[in-house]
Amino acid sequence: MDRKGHFITFEGLDGCGKSTQVRHTAQIFREQGFEVVEIRDPGSTAVGEAAREILLNPRYAEMDATTEVLLFAVARSQLVAEVIRPALDEGKVVLSDRFYDSTTAYQGYGRQLNLNMVLQINAIGAHDLVPDLTFIFDISPETSAERMARSGKSPDRMENEKLAFHQRVRRGFLDIARQNPDRCRVLDGHEPEQEIRKKIHIELLKRHYI
Amino acid sequence: MDRKGHFITFEGLDGCGKSTQVRHTAQIFREQGFEVVEIRDPGSTAVGEAAREILLNPRYAEMDATTEVLLFAVARSQLVAEVIRPALDEGKVVLSDRFYDSTTAYQGYGRQLNLNMVLQINAIGAHDLVPDLTFIFDISPETSAERMARSGKSPDRMENEKLAFHQRVRRGFLDIARQNPDRCRVLDGHEPEQEIRKKIHIELLKRHYI
Repeated sequence: MDRKGHFITFEGLDGCGKSTQVRHTAQIFREQGFEVVEIRDPGSTAVGEAAREILLNPRYAEMDATTEVLLFAVARSQLVAEVIRPALDEGKVVLSDRFYDSTTAYQGYGRQLNLNMVLQINAIGAHDLVPDLTFIFDISPETSAERMARSGKSPDRMENEKLAFHQRVRRGFLDIARQNPDRCRVLDGHEPEQEIRKKIHIELLKRHYI
Repeated sequence: MDRKGHFITFEGLDGCGKSTQVRHTAQIFREQGFEVVEIRDPGSTAVGEAAREILLNPRYAEMDATTEVLLFAVARSQLVAEVIRPALDEGKVVLSDRFYDSTTAYQGYGRQLNLNMVLQINAIGAHDLVPDLTFIFDISPETSAERMARSGKSPDRMENEKLAFHQRVRRGFLDIARQNPDRCRVLDGHEPEQEIRKKIHIELLKRHYI
């Protein structure tokens, strides 16, 4: 069994089930005696939560798209420096609800910004850290919208975007998976929660993480 | 007389007199019938002021240095998109109290971050906009500290930095001026205010801005 730290990210459209699977995955690791740090990006630091508040506040609807990418990088940079790097150095498992693939998918593909610029900012914001493993939970924009409506969450700036936007974002996540086949594992987010959990468990065993 | 917009930035250590000269320069342009927009970076937009509040709040003293550079780029990106570009497109004169040279000098030279990384973020944050003219007000760190103490301003995170840091920042500004001789004009900030104002006036005339 490999006791060194692992950095695993969970990506997909809102309502894809990633937050639930972060909790399940944490449980799997903890049952094996690992120390687990659960985080969300943007967020999980004082600076990151302040950046998140600016990002999601409808008051700043006039935000320029490049500004938005840079603000995500602010939150991520602080998260890597303050939480992720130190935890990995101590051999802990770090599970993050979203990371830079979300910026590539939402801002690069969704908002159709220059992809090279987005990837350049992502690399700087991540201090060149790359996740060991990324689970991408693929769901249709329609399922995403239905689940978000059912959850009764008030729509933030992201969720106000149109269906075509979310179709581009979904395609973005799938492109990222194709371009990073060793790092990324796509799971069908329409499947039952327990089925997905089992597939994650198998993936962790196959990679000798547990 | 050239009626197209001009973008002029004012740089230097705190207490160098740049804010006063922004006002003087605005007056010179207005007397010639120009519309003038006076801004400060970071700031001058809702998003930028929110970023500025995070940057200067001693509560966030644990802020990582790369995070700081990215946060300056956030404020600047919004400022360019929302204020500077539209004003220049309308033929206005834009005068900015600080711009990206401050990030190069304070974070690149002062905090000794990777200069290429800082310049890369600066270019993205400025949407590749370059000032037409930059006045650099050169003063010693000792004069800066004296003037700030006399002004009775409460020290923010920046002003808590040590003398050696400000010596590196001063050297940074002078290096920037050497590397960008057409864009930058260094003025001795120890000279009397009226003397400096006269030199700015002459520079604007020589460049056919007025």
